[in-house]
Amino acid sequence: MNDKAPIDFWFDFSSPYGYLLSECIDTVAARHGRQVRWHPILLGVIFQSTGSHPPAGDDSAKARYITRDFHHSARFMGVPYRPPSRFPLPTQAAARAYYWLHDRDGALARQFAHAVYRAFFVADRDISAPNTVLDLAAALGAEDGQIREQLAAAIQSPELKARLKEACDAALAAGVFGSPHVRIDGEAFFGADRLPQIERWLETGGF
Amino acid sequence: MNDKAPIDFWFDFSSPYGYLLSECIDTVAARHGRQVRWHPILLGVIFQSTGSHPPAGDDSAKARYITRDFHHSARFMGVPYRPPSRFPLPTQAAARAYYWLHDRDGALARQFAHAVYRAFFVADRDISAPNTVLDLAAALGAEDGQIREQLAAAIQSPELKARLKEACDAALAAGVFGSPHVRIDGEAFFGADRLPQIERWLETGGF
Repeated sequence: MNDKAPIDFWFDFSSPYGYLLSECIDTVAARHGRQVRWHPILLGVIFQSTGSHPPAGDDSAKARYITRDFHHSARFMGVPYRPPSRFPLPTQAAARAYYWLHDRDGALARQFAHAVYRAFFVADRDISAPNTVLDLAAALGAEDGQIREQLAAAIQSPELKARLKEACDAALAAGVFGSPHVRIDGEAFFGADRLPQIERWLETGGF
Repeated sequence: MNDKAPIDFWFDFSSPYGYLLSECIDTVAARHGRQVRWHPILLGVIFQSTGSHPPAGDDSAKARYITRDFHHSARFMGVPYRPPSRFPLPTQAAARAYYWLHDRDGALARQFAHAVYRAFFVADRDISAPNTVLDLAAALGAEDGQIREQLAAAIQSPELKARLKEACDAALAAGVFGSPHVRIDGEAFFGADRLPQIERWLETGGF
């Protein structure tokens, strides 16, 4: 086993548990000499294919629990969290922008992903709006001053739509059924609450 | 807040995560001067009322993941686990026997609950069979040698059926939607993977 193989991390920008894990996964991986490949996906596409459904969204005891657990888990993991006033939100624009940036500058795309998640889950910004996404990308201070204009054109392009669709298809092929979903050495870990098991796996190379 | 209030622990005897938590919850609670009230319930009744469904049982990527996660979580928590050859199983007989024993001897009922869970998730015994349940109860070496005979009669009684139904109704009224479900000071914790949050809560009295 190549113990330096990268870790795969799938998430939807509207997933609170995806946000919580996004704030921790790179640090944990780096402690064990691993890099993380980030893959934003659309849970709607995943759920449509798997016949599953979002964990929250109604007024059931379970939905109320999960809403409260977002707070608990954030506090437990030491991650700032303020519930967005509109939730969930469509994340096509943000995910497309991520891949466009990634194909130009991987580090910039990582910064952008953090910015999107924090905009949604801390600053309560409407990350479904292309303008918000463009503002977040432009605010990264990229060396290329034309980033906003170029991204605005690209975000509606068939190429970038296809790029995101391929990412969702690849996630499904890899067995992804929700967000966040992590794969290390072929082993799956689902949910932010699997972070301790991820750490153990990275330490020991298995259980 | 009365920080010595007992903890409530709801579970189904066919729930792997319920089993994992059952092996840890009393020890964790005792470290913080708390007792645990155990409440076996029937997930079928809970799911029928909430319109939910079991997390596994088909051949989806999610079901395959959960099957594997049972192993991972057991190893991670240091609890012996062997997947039962038949799963899930009906648990009416075991749950009714628990309440019958509990109304006579709380400590004996606790031993019985551990025996049922270990019979199912370590020794692969058919805990749906009343005979298995009676054997497990009799093997506890209760002071009353007649326990098997008395329990055999009681387990089909309308009184004991009603006792279990009341337990399920009380669980639903308390917001229980799955297994294991823990309540501490009015706060809910769902899943064996919430044990670290339970510990934090018991240490700090909140988050």
